[in-house]
Amino acid sequence: MKLLQSEIDKIIHIALEEDIHYVDVTTDYLLPDEHQSSAYYLAKDDGVICGLDIAERVFALVGGGVNFQAKYKDGDKVRKGEILALMNGNTKTLLKGERTALNILQHMSGIATATAHCVELVAGTKAQITDTRKTLPGLRRLQKYAVTVGGGKNHRYNLSDGAMLKDNHIDVYGGIKPAVKALREKIGHMTKIEVEVRNLKELLDALSVGCEVIMLDNMTCEEMAQAVNLTAGRALLEASGNITEENIAEIARTGVDIISLGALTHSVKCFDISMRFDQ
Amino acid sequence: MKLLQSEIDKIIHIALEEDIHYVDVTTDYLLPDEHQSSAYYLAKDDGVICGLDIAERVFALVGGGVNFQAKYKDGDKVRKGEILALMNGNTKTLLKGERTALNILQHMSGIATATAHCVELVAGTKAQITDTRKTLPGLRRLQKYAVTVGGGKNHRYNLSDGAMLKDNHIDVYGGIKPAVKALREKIGHMTKIEVEVRNLKELLDALSVGCEVIMLDNMTCEEMAQAVNLTAGRALLEASGNITEENIAEIARTGVDIISLGALTHSVKCFDISMRFDQ
Amino acid sequence: MKLLQSEIDKIIHIALEEDIHYVDVTTDYLLPDEHQSSAYYLAKDDGVICGLDIAERVFALVGGGVNFQAKYKDGDKVRKGEILALMNGNTKTLLKGERTALNILQHMSGIATATAHCVELVAGTKAQITDTRKTLPGLRRLQKYAVTVGGGKNHRYNLSDGAMLKDNHIDVYGGIKPAVKALREKIGHMTKIEVEVRNLKELLDALSVGCEVIMLDNMTCEEMAQAVNLTAGRALLEASGNITEENIAEIARTGVDIISLGALTHSVKCFDISMRFDQ
Amino acid sequence: MKLLQSEIDKIIHIALEEDIHYVDVTTDYLLPDEHQSSAYYLAKDDGVICGLDIAERVFALVGGGVNFQAKYKDGDKVRKGEILALMNGNTKTLLKGERTALNILQHMSGIATATAHCVELVAGTKAQITDTRKTLPGLRRLQKYAVTVGGGKNHRYNLSDGAMLKDNHIDVYGGIKPAVKALREKIGHMTKIEVEVRNLKELLDALSVGCEVIMLDNMTCEEMAQAVNLTAGRALLEASGNITEENIAEIARTGVDIISLGALTHSVKCFDISMRFDQ
Amino acid sequence: MKLLQSEIDKIIHIALEEDIHYVDVTTDYLLPDEHQSSAYYLAKDDGVICGLDIAERVFALVGGGVNFQAKYKDGDKVRKGEILALMNGNTKTLLKGERTALNILQHMSGIATATAHCVELVAGTKAQITDTRKTLPGLRRLQKYAVTVGGGKNHRYNLSDGAMLKDNHIDVYGGIKPAVKALREKIGHMTKIEVEVRNLKELLDALSVGCEVIMLDNMTCEEMAQAVNLTAGRALLEASGNITEENIAEIARTGVDIISLGALTHSVKCFDISMRFDQ
Amino acid sequence: MKLLQSEIDKIIHIALEEDIHYVDVTTDYLLPDEHQSSAYYLAKDDGVICGLDIAERVFALVGGGVNFQAKYKDGDKVRKGEILALMNGNTKTLLKGERTALNILQHMSGIATATAHCVELVAGTKAQITDTRKTLPGLRRLQKYAVTVGGGKNHRYNLSDGAMLKDNHIDVYGGIKPAVKALREKIGHMTKIEVEVRNLKELLDALSVGCEVIMLDNMTCEEMAQAVNLTAGRALLEASGNITEENIAEIARTGVDIISLGALTHSVKCFDISMRFDQ
Repeated sequence: MKLLQSEIDKIIHIALEEDIHYVDVTTDYLLPDEHQSSAYYLAKDDGVICGLDIAERVFALVGGGVNFQAKYKDGDKVRKGEILALMNGNTKTLLKGERTALNILQHMSGIATATAHCVELVAGTKAQITDTRKTLPGLRRLQKYAVTVGGGKNHRYNLSDGAMLKDNHIDVYGGIKPAVKALREKIGHMTKIEVEVRNLKELLDALSVGCEVIMLDNMTCEEMAQAVNLTAGRALLEASGNITEENIAEIARTGVDIISLGALTHSVKCFDISMRFDQ
Repeated sequence: MKLLQSEIDKIIHIALEEDIHYVDVTTDYLLPDEHQSSAYYLAKDDGVICGLDIAERVFALVGGGVNFQAKYKDGDKVRKGEILALMNGNTKTLLKGERTALNILQHMSGIATATAHCVELVAGTKAQITDTRKTLPGLRRLQKYAVTVGGGKNHRYNLSDGAMLKDNHIDVYGGIKPAVKALREKIGHMTKIEVEVRNLKELLDALSVGCEVIMLDNMTCEEMAQAVNLTAGRALLEASGNITEENIAEIARTGVDIISLGALTHSVKCFDISMRFDQ
Repeated sequence: MKLLQSEIDKIIHIALEEDIHYVDVTTDYLLPDEHQSSAYYLAKDDGVICGLDIAERVFALVGGGVNFQAKYKDGDKVRKGEILALMNGNTKTLLKGERTALNILQHMSGIATATAHCVELVAGTKAQITDTRKTLPGLRRLQKYAVTVGGGKNHRYNLSDGAMLKDNHIDVYGGIKPAVKALREKIGHMTKIEVEVRNLKELLDALSVGCEVIMLDNMTCEEMAQAVNLTAGRALLEASGNITEENIAEIARTGVDIISLGALTHSVKCFDISMRFDQ
Repeated sequence: MKLLQSEIDKIIHIALEEDIHYVDVTTDYLLPDEHQSSAYYLAKDDGVICGLDIAERVFALVGGGVNFQAKYKDGDKVRKGEILALMNGNTKTLLKGERTALNILQHMSGIATATAHCVELVAGTKAQITDTRKTLPGLRRLQKYAVTVGGGKNHRYNLSDGAMLKDNHIDVYGGIKPAVKALREKIGHMTKIEVEVRNLKELLDALSVGCEVIMLDNMTCEEMAQAVNLTAGRALLEASGNITEENIAEIARTGVDIISLGALTHSVKCFDISMRFDQ
Repeated sequence: MKLLQSEIDKIIHIALEEDIHYVDVTTDYLLPDEHQSSAYYLAKDDGVICGLDIAERVFALVGGGVNFQAKYKDGDKVRKGEILALMNGNTKTLLKGERTALNILQHMSGIATATAHCVELVAGTKAQITDTRKTLPGLRRLQKYAVTVGGGKNHRYNLSDGAMLKDNHIDVYGGIKPAVKALREKIGHMTKIEVEVRNLKELLDALSVGCEVIMLDNMTCEEMAQAVNLTAGRALLEASGNITEENIAEIARTGVDIISLGALTHSVKCFDISMRFDQ
Repeated sequence: MKLLQSEIDKIIHIALEEDIHYVDVTTDYLLPDEHQSSAYYLAKDDGVICGLDIAERVFALVGGGVNFQAKYKDGDKVRKGEILALMNGNTKTLLKGERTALNILQHMSGIATATAHCVELVAGTKAQITDTRKTLPGLRRLQKYAVTVGGGKNHRYNLSDGAMLKDNHIDVYGGIKPAVKALREKIGHMTKIEVEVRNLKELLDALSVGCEVIMLDNMTCEEMAQAVNLTAGRALLEASGNITEENIAEIARTGVDIISLGALTHSVKCFDISMRFDQ
């Protein structure tokens, strides 16, 4: 899977403009143009790597003249102390691109690592881990991609490519059934409808009008297990809300199909990587 | 302090384009144009609020017709369970802007809250909490602003407005002294020079050439205390690297002037806020 | 349904930059700033109107000072000779925005009119008329919106929000069944899978792996009717390719669910509207 | 003649962002990165080709790795059934760029073909076929270029580079003569003045003040022939309005210099081209 | 005459982003939000004012809350010591926009003033003063507009809206006559052809093929006078190259129609204006 | 020192769009695609060259196929009559890029030349020549860079990376001392504070609170010399306002550290360079 290069470049250009802006007064003033160095990325933790090719691209766009040799590819598990990539070439390029490349690489790897951890916690169940629309402005592409790299799946990308009915939508029509029917009249045939339900009564309503996906909103595990039984495969069931490392496995064992976590993208702990120069 | 409205709008437009893209197939198809609702933001945790005016702006840009009444302003402490803002007006606007507004508001408040927490931990010392250049692509303005809202200070904004010499720069000149002298020949008179030092010998070198700021790189608290004594106010000292909630107070007590934390912006835990609709 | 104002404005700004560029050498040089006129839009044909609010917005962005009173709203049927909108106010604004407003209004109304015509031709059947991805660069939002205004439905918006397997995808996996299974492992739960089939054997394959939508590629009406029988509601069937005004009703009567037409957006005949100034 | 590459690239990037957006969920998920294919463009009709180099550029920008061999160049006449270009290389690139490339290529070739048809219809007269400002937002460069490829000429590009007086301009000055004189005082010496006239009286007025170009607005062929006689080469005469395939030759035979057609760009029938993969 | 507001705003946004970037660390940190001031623009020299409405717009875009009262309008002559505009309102807005507004205002007024000076120097002759394409990147709109405000005319805006044959073009065709004929075959009927000539022989060639404008390249005044005689009104004659304050009147008296000066836009001396705050 | 390539390219693309816009109607229509020429840049004056690599980049972006051989590098002194660069290759590229390349090259070289002239005038003193924020919209990067190429230093880049207190800021706090103290509480540790003073009393105030830089506003040379004595190295002193070629040496001899000149960037006389084609 590959994001559009032009969209990645747009983000890199914005980031370089933020970080360098005019000139790097330290590096541009002190280092000779032709100075060469070699450096490497060092994992400071265990995790799943994501974004090495974007880091490489940062060095190309900031000035070039750097040979970048990735030791891993997106999705690979890496261990603390491992070398992730070797770089050698123009020192000014390496120094001027260092922070921008790391900022992106560490963020994406942080997402992939957290996702992979959740995927592991639900191993053996049929539950899939997905992201949400709780992403940071301008970074949805990178964040959703990183979720897939960590083994997760993407929920709808935006408000346009999937329908999700909440109370507000439903109340206007006086119930799930009329609301879903009204919507079905209008949306395109490629768009799925998901409905948020708060109890089994609503679940039955949603099933009766053929919703493809049903979100079980803040239900207990017991309720979710009942929902799974009642549904019997007629729709996909999504658990959402208050999901933690502690309860995710138990939730998965209720038999739900999907577990979505906003924290994968709204509260990212960056994956610690160090760029070291050879002396 | 106020960011440029045009730069904020640029970010909001990008975020709306990401989240709505074409149309909101649920809301646009189901809700009557004239439908009205009232809603409010509810704090789900204790923290420092940041970004309510940006949230208000999201609703204005997504369609308008919403009256937004903020109960707090940037920098205010809020408690779990408190209402942060009241909104009433066009339901479609409220639903279409809901996620984009929250994504920004929760991220900025998360940064402000974490910063305020660090500031509290070092209370009573002269240490200032600052951010770094470890920010997310496209979000530096919002993130650095949120740090100040939390009571922190801003480190240099980019590679252009402050010099920072690291090993790579120094090695080319055979030492801190010649490197700083070479740089002083070139940079403008409004730009400060900071030097990274690894031991007291290097500290003395940096002091001898009048560096305005000196970064103590991964030193023990004991070494930092010695550095403070040796420096005796001739330069500002910055502690950096491996700073945690556990050791930050002890570091502050060494007498350093600045404690900079990348985590404030590279590993943000969003502040939990819920948007609730009145029934 | 409402497109994002910021996205519409982006298109208008591009169009005004194209059409005015520097100044309107005729109007800017000749007319007094305060000159006032009244004008109106006149339908030169029967059709479905779409885009009057965008035309109004053009005059606001080109200089303002114009009162615009739409007599119809998107989706309304209009007849040749009817007045569609009244405008009065600043003559320079009216003249400088005239062509840009008409270019957009006529294009969108052309699409809505053609779509409505197709919808009419299949009235009484369950067939829905949809667009395709055969749109003009930069105009997909406007074009797809205009299709809905004409009573059509939107097919997938882009390559990201719906899967469609063609020969090339299938051949790599040695058949529809393994290809669909491979894809199901990867795509998110909100994304539907459509498969292109060339005969009834392939249709059965696609049904056996639960494809939500099946495209009948250049089949005869007889084959399509057989496909409808065989499918018996287990999937949505889409007719595509070589659809004309002449055969569309017959195709619809085969019982297919969807008829998609590239011509709605790739070969648009603009709807003829004249802007007349009162003397 | 060659458009600015940066402007073409801007359009392609917009189109790719529209069509791929995030990822191609079918192709990105199913096809191995290294998969190779060969394909070709097949003319489904007779016409004039335009835009093969832009199609080639689409594949370069969407991912590269494709060898593109054009069999024709802009302006060449092609026949139904002919192969227009051969492509071989990375299958993912070919599939992800297919629709965007075709959308542009078919639109431009459609314009070139329609223009060439009009040029043919007036062959043997001195009438030149030109476009108008009735173009689609964001596509003026591509559309006007395609008109020249089809053998037409470009009318003024925008409101800035040519003056055209209509009733509204003239009425303010109480007649063609004072209006043209007022304008001549102000516009630059490189800008021509065209005046719209409705009868021979106005034509004489326009000639008397040395207008370089005179538009004969909705005149009958008889009137136009008289106008040609009266003008006797002192100005260029442009026929405009209600021009069809049926009457264009007759209009040309009146001796007018220019026949301008909005339909060349506002009502484009795309030229049918198929992209076929070798099995 | 009025530039497109969206294009002016684009330039202002760029300029504000350059000048404020993140925050105004002096004003944003020190001044209370509600602080009010009054200020005024003071002419420090005699000249022609241009751009007060753009200055006003700067304050609106940087934060608003300022009442701006222009005492002059574009093209007005002002004297040293005169007050050009009064402003009162939010002090932060006034201080944050001060430099950006002045930078634009002084540049445009500098161009208008220099142009007006040249126009004065040739008063009594029929020579028109025009600009060239020697403008600064991104500022062509503002610069060419300021020339007209100073009483000058605009030469062609770009390479697209006027043809100008130089040696390189002519040599390929073996002379002015065949080159102009070849060009006439291709360009649109609204585009004038100008030819650069170095002697009277070439002038006659250019006249013989009906060039609308002829540039007399670095000719002496005597040669130019001869050219005027020879031409006898059959084409417009443009003097260009090495034109100074000293020789411009003499050149004008040769009877040439146009005198173009690159210095009007490539070597602008800003017009000195001071923004003073009332105490 | 090297500006970000992406920012340079952005400016070049804007300039090419301005100058070519659609097509170069002369060159695109007349010259064969494969035509080759050689040309060179000729200095028409003595000065300091700046921007040859940007000129080279213009030809690459406008069409390529040109071999560009710079004879000088940024900062080199050149003499009237010297050849600055040789170019050979595609004639269309050379002609279409000619004006855009020269416009940038001449502007930057003009700034570098003027700066170098000022630097020379103060040779032998310790005064440094710096620029100001009086730059042209969108050109700050190029202009500030050119100042350094001429041997000048950069003052603060924007309102964000250096503080400068003027009367308005000071008055709110009732004096320099409290104002500076208030500011010091808020700004980051990497940001210097400069204060504008009008007399020696204010100078002492500024020194007493440790301002790093003090601007002597429109003082006489005598006052400045006194200020230098009083300051005795405790702060950097900047002379500003009414600085001319005539008085700059005398000002420098007062012992001030910095002399800032707005004219370096707000009133640039372009450096005269000619592009000549070999016959």
